[in-house]
Amino acid sequence: MDIAAIEAAATRAEGHVRRTPLLWSPALDALAGRRVRVKPECLQHTGSFKLRGAWSAISALDPEVRARGVLAYSSGNHAQGVAWAARAFGVPALIIMPRDAPAAKIEGTRALGAEVVLYDRGSESREEIGARMEAERGLTLIRPYDEPMVIAGQGTCGLEIAAQAAEQGIETADVLVCCGGGGLTAGIALALEAKAPGLRVRPVEPAGYDDTARSLASGTRQGNATEAGGLCDAILTPMPGEITFPVLHRLCGPGVVVSDDEVLRAMALAFRHLKVVAEPGGAVALAAALFHGDAQEGDAVICTISGGNVDTATFTRALEQG
Amino acid sequence: MDIAAIEAAATRAEGHVRRTPLLWSPALDALAGRRVRVKPECLQHTGSFKLRGAWSAISALDPEVRARGVLAYSSGNHAQGVAWAARAFGVPALIIMPRDAPAAKIEGTRALGAEVVLYDRGSESREEIGARMEAERGLTLIRPYDEPMVIAGQGTCGLEIAAQAAEQGIETADVLVCCGGGGLTAGIALALEAKAPGLRVRPVEPAGYDDTARSLASGTRQGNATEAGGLCDAILTPMPGEITFPVLHRLCGPGVVVSDDEVLRAMALAFRHLKVVAEPGGAVALAAALFHGDAQEGDAVICTISGGNVDTATFTRALEQG
Repeated sequence: MDIAAIEAAATRAEGHVRRTPLLWSPALDALAGRRVRVKPECLQHTGSFKLRGAWSAISALDPEVRARGVLAYSSGNHAQGVAWAARAFGVPALIIMPRDAPAAKIEGTRALGAEVVLYDRGSESREEIGARMEAERGLTLIRPYDEPMVIAGQGTCGLEIAAQAAEQGIETADVLVCCGGGGLTAGIALALEAKAPGLRVRPVEPAGYDDTARSLASGTRQGNATEAGGLCDAILTPMPGEITFPVLHRLCGPGVVVSDDEVLRAMALAFRHLKVVAEPGGAVALAAALFHGDAQEGDAVICTISGGNVDTATFTRALEQG
Repeated sequence: MDIAAIEAAATRAEGHVRRTPLLWSPALDALAGRRVRVKPECLQHTGSFKLRGAWSAISALDPEVRARGVLAYSSGNHAQGVAWAARAFGVPALIIMPRDAPAAKIEGTRALGAEVVLYDRGSESREEIGARMEAERGLTLIRPYDEPMVIAGQGTCGLEIAAQAAEQGIETADVLVCCGGGGLTAGIALALEAKAPGLRVRPVEPAGYDDTARSLASGTRQGNATEAGGLCDAILTPMPGEITFPVLHRLCGPGVVVSDDEVLRAMALAFRHLKVVAEPGGAVALAAALFHGDAQEGDAVICTISGGNVDTATFTRALEQG
């Protein structure tokens, strides 16, 4: 994984993955006390950045291998990214999802033409089901974050941030990234290391699921007590990845942890001032920019909105509370 | 008003007015039975296309005239566009707004540094108040649509549509435009006449306020019975403009009229599939694309989302009904 891999992923993605804008609003600047620049990956195809990594991995496969189809485990955004890319290449996609995944995400994945197999988190092993399907059909597993080609794809978001920050005259800033397994965080950090060394990545997580912040503080991978039940479903993972963590450890500043209440307020402020839809997991970095400014340095901050796949009830709750 | 004026407005706007993307989603394509391409002007600074026209008009003023300040009558989006552009040029802006305008729009205008004077629609004449202020302070009135420099500015949206449609291989299509006084509609129509003659503009209005559709059908300007009380407040005007209507009459196809229920459903679909916030008046063209496809020709349709300045209660209603 280096800048060449990220640039190659960007070339393969051209015309297929959207270049998202870098948004801002004077109201958010006033609230944060510094310039706030927002990378709305909710506007990416499938409603999240995950298409970048899925496209990178699937487009890099040998055509004969790819033709047999791809497989993913995912409760949501990665599933839709893989399904979208597989459909574009005209190859089958099998997605193994927990039976309790948000209905909108299951439906969204099916609507993209993928075959969805549901499993019970309590009594079944998705790895066993997946291994059987891989063997029977010759499918290729596309891992959600601990996979160099996926990280390279997420890094294309970092290439765009580097170029857009330069256009806006921002040379030094914290770049706050919504962090689950660390694929987006690692990819952006690698891109910025090469293209905008004054921009420092900092992972952001919800309280109770701050495995990356604790891992960075201790220097070794720490796990979460649970990965179920949180508001920020899109970015809840058991622990930082084996491949992603060393990158984060080398390149990132300290993690930031935000509360669910701050997440809901950030969703409401993105609605009001940016006119974009953020899902809870996608709003943690904006929450950090707006409500944890004391922990940041410099006169500008850049943050990702990693996705916008949120159901009506949760979004309405954010608008009413936020 | 010709393509040279629009291109000059685009040059003056560079670096100040956002180039909005052209979005799409396979779910909306499936619903409409053709490719649906969406120009989300809700992502424009101030949350609506109005900044384009305000920037064009204010940037074209003689600097000495401009320094005395500008004046606008507006219940919302035009006010914010004028306030934003005036602030960027460092000149005063006075906005005359009805006392019953949405609180969010009054606050948004004040937050941009404009002086807001409220008047009572029933008992006071905004023109009288405005004329007095113009005389006393030497302000320049920026009309919301019946003003060549404003129309030229709105036309910059048409230049972008022409380029983006070509990039996506769309040569012939109906271009559905949210239509109030006709500034955006006329500007886009003039830009497309020169740059993409296969794209035909069609104005879209809410039922009960379909002055433009009736005017196009009869060939002469027709008025609305009322301009108050509608869901789509941003695009309710008494009748097509004196300057805009001849342009519409020469260049546009028949108007399309949509119901409030269709507008709310379009807002919910933009939330779900595009992750953008549309205000009611900004969603009429998407509603026409999705629910009035029989009235359209070709395998693609392009529609504007003209703005996203909607209060929480109305947006929640759209999500719940839509």
